Amino acid sequence: MSEARVIGLLHPGEMGSAVGATLAAGGGRVLWASQGRGARTRQRAEEIDLEDAGTLEQLARHAEVIFSVAPPQAAVDVARAVAALRFTGLFVDANAVSPETAREIGRIVERGGARFVDGGIIGPANRKPGAARLYLSGPEAAHVAPLFAAGPVSAVKLEGPVGAASALKMAFAGWNKGMQALLMAIRALAMAEGVDQALLAEWRISMPEVPARSERAVHENARKAWRFVGEMEQIARTFAQAGLPTGFHDAAGEVYRCLAGYKDTPAPPSVEEAIAALLKRTSREPGSILL
Amino acid sequence: MSEARVIGLLHPGEMGSAVGATLAAGGGRVLWASQGRGARTRQRAEEIDLEDAGTLEQLARHAEVIFSVAPPQAAVDVARAVAALRFTGLFVDANAVSPETAREIGRIVERGGARFVDGGIIGPANRKPGAARLYLSGPEAAHVAPLFAAGPVSAVKLEGPVGAASALKMAFAGWNKGMQALLMAIRALAMAEGVDQALLAEWRISMPEVPARSERAVHENARKAWRFVGEMEQIARTFAQAGLPTGFHDAAGEVYRCLAGYKDTPAPPSVEEAIAALLKRTSREPGSILL
Repeated sequence: MSEARVIGLLHPGEMGSAVGATLAAGGGRVLWASQGRGARTRQRAEEIDLEDAGTLEQLARHAEVIFSVAPPQAAVDVARAVAALRFTGLFVDANAVSPETAREIGRIVERGGARFVDGGIIGPANRKPGAARLYLSGPEAAHVAPLFAAGPVSAVKLEGPVGAASALKMAFAGWNKGMQALLMAIRALAMAEGVDQALLAEWRISMPEVPARSERAVHENARKAWRFVGEMEQIARTFAQAGLPTGFHDAAGEVYRCLAGYKDTPAPPSVEEAIAALLKRTSREPGSILL
Repeated sequence: MSEARVIGLLHPGEMGSAVGATLAAGGGRVLWASQGRGARTRQRAEEIDLEDAGTLEQLARHAEVIFSVAPPQAAVDVARAVAALRFTGLFVDANAVSPETAREIGRIVERGGARFVDGGIIGPANRKPGAARLYLSGPEAAHVAPLFAAGPVSAVKLEGPVGAASALKMAFAGWNKGMQALLMAIRALAMAEGVDQALLAEWRISMPEVPARSERAVHENARKAWRFVGEMEQIARTFAQAGLPTGFHDAAGEVYRCLAGYKDTPAPPSVEEAIAALLKRTSREPGSILL
């Protein structure tokens, strides 16, 4: 980046702060809006030296580009709030939403006077160089990719129209998170039927990588499960639009919903604890952590 | 085996003939019943030197042990037919059915005077030593395991009651076949949305084993998909009984149903052909191979 662009980031959550760190590394002035945000978001914003614009209104007034990085169920509301402020810069939706939702978001912000880029982030939010990629699509995508030249998040421009980047995210997460939800449900079934040890023994013979993968599915996802519920709904909608069955991700959403109570727990649950939640056993106990 | 047991095999299909070869290798006289069976079943039976009892009635009259190895949707009918002949030996159901269906089959054959063993076969039907295991459960299971001492199929007695062997089969197949159906559906989604090449490129970075796995899912399953439809129904029922969501395997059943037209095709379809079937494109063409 030769010129210092002013960029707004909504919001510096876990993945948002990886995007923010990349934009700041590229020489941009990166604004966030502290109004209504929690202590952990403030901490992340300060760690990566973002400028606090205070309110969304101030952010939208000064930013040339706004990135929306939010839980999927909040993506349309973020776009509406920005459109209501008559933001006329470039709006990048980087959320895990269906292509249809991405196109809807595009229409919302364009009616407010902005230009729109469809985005989708794939990879972990750990700020290791090359760990995560922001896929971009639509006619304005070429304006966004250069902002990511410094890393750690890299940008990849797709050839397709608005919706392509979101479709890629849906397909990737549809496998990665759908498969892991299925695997947790299978362990739950085996435990419910008293054959979990036999299943692990059979897997060690015929599919030796699966026992450890099923444990990682619990350890890596239980505390993030609350935000996967909305993502599974978006994936199911994407499947429906393509004439494919929605059941895989309806069921995956149910699995993640059962685990939503592990949000913000200090340590991930054991496989046994998580599976008890899937079998809805903990919901019968007083003081349950389930929603 | 010190004594030559007379064993009935219903029926020497692909997996059945691997079981039949094992029983014959163990010294048993293995009967099959040619009445109403096709040319390929006869060919398999002759290859492994089974004795043709002609009718089910003759088979049930002479056999001390009967193995039922059939598509899941036929399992109850096989048991009813044997029970109607007042078979009083040991009946082993080795089919991919829910624990509930296994218990129902047990009640049917016991009412006819037989003793019952629950079984579930895991592994490919290729007759390589150690490739497949017949899991067995229930109080009579110890009488069956010695018949498999010679291999290639080995027998594993579980500690659990009738239903445990079927539950293990449901859990194993629920992952293996559910996961592969999901993976095919994901490729179909990506193709429908024009991002299949981008998805393959992302997988090569972050999940390098997945592209080849998705191709194997098509090549190894398309021609067998017709018999997985009933199995997915049994798995969905097993999930429902355990209070787990049925959507994964309802959807997997839809995927396999779309591929059912590849039964008995000389070569597996390409990924593109199979995915066109999933997207129901071929059903709009005259001469469609879909059901």
